[in-house]
Amino acid sequence: MASLKPLYDRVVVKPIEEKEGKTPSGIIIPDTAKEKPSEGEVIAVGEGRLLENGQTVPLKVKVGDKVVYSKYAGNEFVVDGEELIVLREDDILAIIEK
Amino acid sequence: MASLKPLYDRVVVKPIEEKEGKTPSGIIIPDTAKEKPSEGEVIAVGEGRLLENGQTVPLKVKVGDKVVYSKYAGNEFVVDGEELIVLREDDILAIIEK
Amino acid sequence: MASLKPLYDRVVVKPIEEKEGKTPSGIIIPDTAKEKPSEGEVIAVGEGRLLENGQTVPLKVKVGDKVVYSKYAGNEFVVDGEELIVLREDDILAIIEK
Amino acid sequence: MASLKPLYDRVVVKPIEEKEGKTPSGIIIPDTAKEKPSEGEVIAVGEGRLLENGQTVPLKVKVGDKVVYSKYAGNEFVVDGEELIVLREDDILAIIEK
Amino acid sequence: MASLKPLYDRVVVKPIEEKEGKTPSGIIIPDTAKEKPSEGEVIAVGEGRLLENGQTVPLKVKVGDKVVYSKYAGNEFVVDGEELIVLREDDILAIIEK
Amino acid sequence: MASLKPLYDRVVVKPIEEKEGKTPSGIIIPDTAKEKPSEGEVIAVGEGRLLENGQTVPLKVKVGDKVVYSKYAGNEFVVDGEELIVLREDDILAIIEK
Amino acid sequence: MASLKPLYDRVVVKPIEEKEGKTPSGIIIPDTAKEKPSEGEVIAVGEGRLLENGQTVPLKVKVGDKVVYSKYAGNEFVVDGEELIVLREDDILAIIEK
Repeated sequence: MASLKPLYDRVVVKPIEEKEGKTPSGIIIPDTAKEKPSEGEVIAVGEGRLLENGQTVPLKVKVGDKVVYSKYAGNEFVVDGEELIVLREDDILAIIEK
Repeated sequence: MASLKPLYDRVVVKPIEEKEGKTPSGIIIPDTAKEKPSEGEVIAVGEGRLLENGQTVPLKVKVGDKVVYSKYAGNEFVVDGEELIVLREDDILAIIEK
Repeated sequence: MASLKPLYDRVVVKPIEEKEGKTPSGIIIPDTAKEKPSEGEVIAVGEGRLLENGQTVPLKVKVGDKVVYSKYAGNEFVVDGEELIVLREDDILAIIEK
Repeated sequence: MASLKPLYDRVVVKPIEEKEGKTPSGIIIPDTAKEKPSEGEVIAVGEGRLLENGQTVPLKVKVGDKVVYSKYAGNEFVVDGEELIVLREDDILAIIEK
Repeated sequence: MASLKPLYDRVVVKPIEEKEGKTPSGIIIPDTAKEKPSEGEVIAVGEGRLLENGQTVPLKVKVGDKVVYSKYAGNEFVVDGEELIVLREDDILAIIEK
Repeated sequence: MASLKPLYDRVVVKPIEEKEGKTPSGIIIPDTAKEKPSEGEVIAVGEGRLLENGQTVPLKVKVGDKVVYSKYAGNEFVVDGEELIVLREDDILAIIEK
Repeated sequence: MASLKPLYDRVVVKPIEEKEGKTPSGIIIPDTAKEKPSEGEVIAVGEGRLLENGQTVPLKVKVGDKVVYSKYAGNEFVVDGEELIVLREDDILAIIEK
């Protein structure tokens, strides 16, 4: 089974489908933003952001995190039947906590 | 109940509705700026801005601060019935003091 | 009474109305620039500019300074009946001295 | 036989043709992305990224890696009958693991 | 009498009118550049350029210098009947020597 | 006989004409890229790239290298009857090895 | 007699007219580039490039150098009857050697 290992500050996110206009976490995306799901679960994370001084800074998001991300960000793929999005951590706005 | 934990220099702001053309703090947004509320209350803050030298600088705004922010900035969400905006601290112009 | 406390390198300026085509300081804004006042008094200043090395550099303008600023810069608000502009210190061109 | 030795942070990738709408790794590129293959195998890598402090950081991708890369990135060549793409490592989104 | 004290790397320049197609220094601005005067005298200079490491570097131009500056640069004012331009030192191309 | 000594990170490249749709190295430029030759031989190199810390980093390409370069890059000259292109080393994608 | 002393990384160049489609150094500018002379002699140089760390790096071109420069770069002046161009050293592509 294939899986995607993102590079540097990129993360792989599995979008979570809205049902009845809500995501499972209770986040409602307003009408203006409804074209694309923008809640998802982090499936894989890169080793970290490479800074201009050569330092690598580990990412803050972890596998399993539910996140909201900026629509229009990232590239879409389908791997083993699953729709996935690869985006930069900077396109993730917040982690959803319960 | 779900809540949003913003990353890095992002903050979650709950917009405050204007009543009779004024926000509760007495700020009037001129006609040219009336399309979107631009006063709000800070609901959550990220851990800080990541600088190019690897240092993380804590944000200046705190939970509970009333702020004015740049219209057009940020992404909107509805969480548990509350409209929220996630923006970067740099899109916050000033804290409202009394 | 509400007041605005600007963040980082932002300043709050109260525009000074021109009378008979002149500001009180005797600055005449040429016809091409007449749409917006561009002389004002500094009402509040942020704690300083945050540099990429993490250092905060205090601003050069002080409360009470009369300044000329770049038209088109900043965001307008009305607080307690006063029209105010929040701009970055870098949009202030010069301090007016007498 | 000629071969391409990429410079700095550039890599040479041999695109992998989709068959029946799938790449050999089982990655399906959604319809919106079908114009160009975006799975490939790394054929050669540069010596590393040159940072502003003068340091060279070796690349993370290695010869033989299967990767997905951002469509629209890179320049195409045909060398000894093989179609190749030269792109920056930053245009590679993820490594495909099995 | 009011005067302008420029901030940081800004300078105040008094444009010098061309007479018979020449400036007093003998500089002729070719036809394509004739719309705006682009020779002037430096009237005031800021304290220096603020670098990203926090250092302030004093400007190279001094009060009294005759300079040529890039047309389209800067903001125009009239102070005590004098037309003035506030521009960044980087918009000054050269000092005129005799 | 005149020759061009490029500055900093610039290099002088002599384009190699394609014959029968191939360059001598066997590189075929696909139809979409056929307008300009994009294989060439390095004729001269600058002393190196000047970094923001003041350090000069010698270039990786050497005189005599056969290279492929990004079409649309560089400026064309004819020196002693030879067509030459001056481009930045960063516009060189790869060195051709045999 | 007036002369121009360029600031920082700027240089003053005197364009050399082509005769019979060639510059005196034998450089032919191809038809597509014929609108403006792009060979010239360096007349004056600035004290050096100011880096972000505060260091000044002397320029590589010297007075008397024959250079080729990027057309469209720089600002034109006429000083004491001589047409001159002020440009940044980075717009100079190469020094012409014999």
